[in-house]
Amino acid sequence: MSDTLFFCPDIATLPQLPLQESQHCVKVLRMREGDPMTVTDGHGFFYECVLTEAHPKHCIVRIEHRTEMVKKRDFVLHIGFAPTKQMERNEWFVEKSVEIGIDWFTPLLSSYSERKELKKERLEKIAISAMKQSQQAFLPVIDKLTRFSDFVVRPFEGRKFIAHCHDLPKKRLAQTYRKKENALILIGPEGDFSEEEVGMAVANGFEPVSLGETRLRTETACLVAAHTIHVLNNQ
Amino acid sequence: MSDTLFFCPDIATLPQLPLQESQHCVKVLRMREGDPMTVTDGHGFFYECVLTEAHPKHCIVRIEHRTEMVKKRDFVLHIGFAPTKQMERNEWFVEKSVEIGIDWFTPLLSSYSERKELKKERLEKIAISAMKQSQQAFLPVIDKLTRFSDFVVRPFEGRKFIAHCHDLPKKRLAQTYRKKENALILIGPEGDFSEEEVGMAVANGFEPVSLGETRLRTETACLVAAHTIHVLNNQ
Repeated sequence: MSDTLFFCPDIATLPQLPLQESQHCVKVLRMREGDPMTVTDGHGFFYECVLTEAHPKHCIVRIEHRTEMVKKRDFVLHIGFAPTKQMERNEWFVEKSVEIGIDWFTPLLSSYSERKELKKERLEKIAISAMKQSQQAFLPVIDKLTRFSDFVVRPFEGRKFIAHCHDLPKKRLAQTYRKKENALILIGPEGDFSEEEVGMAVANGFEPVSLGETRLRTETACLVAAHTIHVLNNQ
Repeated sequence: MSDTLFFCPDIATLPQLPLQESQHCVKVLRMREGDPMTVTDGHGFFYECVLTEAHPKHCIVRIEHRTEMVKKRDFVLHIGFAPTKQMERNEWFVEKSVEIGIDWFTPLLSSYSERKELKKERLEKIAISAMKQSQQAFLPVIDKLTRFSDFVVRPFEGRKFIAHCHDLPKKRLAQTYRKKENALILIGPEGDFSEEEVGMAVANGFEPVSLGETRLRTETACLVAAHTIHVLNNQ
């Protein structure tokens, strides 16, 4: 595999790099026709290719060989989180969790959310970049901003958890989660989920959990939750 | 405890807030004489105080009550890491690990270090801010930039690990570490530790470990290592 990984979601049907990837290839890396390159579709495949048209806006490649990346994880990890006001904090959570490994993000609109709008394109760009950086072939799904009440009623095949700081009965995530279980974990905004939201989640099968002993910022809690699942699966 | 926590390392002997804390108190929060406030010394104590002189450069306080924060952790966590070129990546590792809980940082100068100099004052400022934000009373130690070869010969009471990506025998950190053990973990620069450095560490009692399945950036590896120790202790 070449050191630089390119992303082209539709390469199987159309071997033409998207605008940004073409610019990076031709303008930044100054690659030329005939140069070899590795491309991923974000769906689990790597393609060894040769650049056949070094166009700054739409590079054309020829596929020489396709290999499937074996997914080493045998659990699904889905984080639902109320994005923080400062966008860069959301961005780093996405970057770090993609590096570590995650399947699905759902940004949530909750009662005390400070952020009421979200451009998910920015987060998708970060996710693509982190996938390429860590040489992976799976791009996680990023949902659009979703109302908490709409989200908690959705079905999920696995354990469902809600992390909160209210003085209500809860377990430690690290003590209750069991290896290989699919996990969906909800993380609240700066001001936490409301007690009503916690009740609504519990009524829909979510288990209340705590993440540790210290008070964590939203984005730290998101990463801590995601990484806890990894550590318990790596034991 | 008040919502805002102030930091004053020498409060036990001199009840005067440092310059920055005084500015924040008077100029930003507009606090006045007679206002109550909570101060920590970073050595494990909280002080309930009353502001007696609201000076923008050196606030004077009167201590009403002192309480000791019980350290909930029964293990020592020390991370030695080669700081990345982009300073903000080092800053976020310090911020996040202080929130989660850490005792000691040693920035290392290693063979392939891209960063050869480091102003540790900037990292200390971040650590203080993260300690206050997460309402803790313990400020971790931050060493000055230290040569790898000088550091690995230093004594440490506990398990010593070196994380690296070379194709050499190693264990998973999550599988070899045992609850309650003190842990010192070394994380290399963007270009990894050299094989010679790994050998030097092993000769000095460090155990080679891997952190997971994906290729992690330096600062992600630092946080992943620190948080792995927490998860295993929280089980």
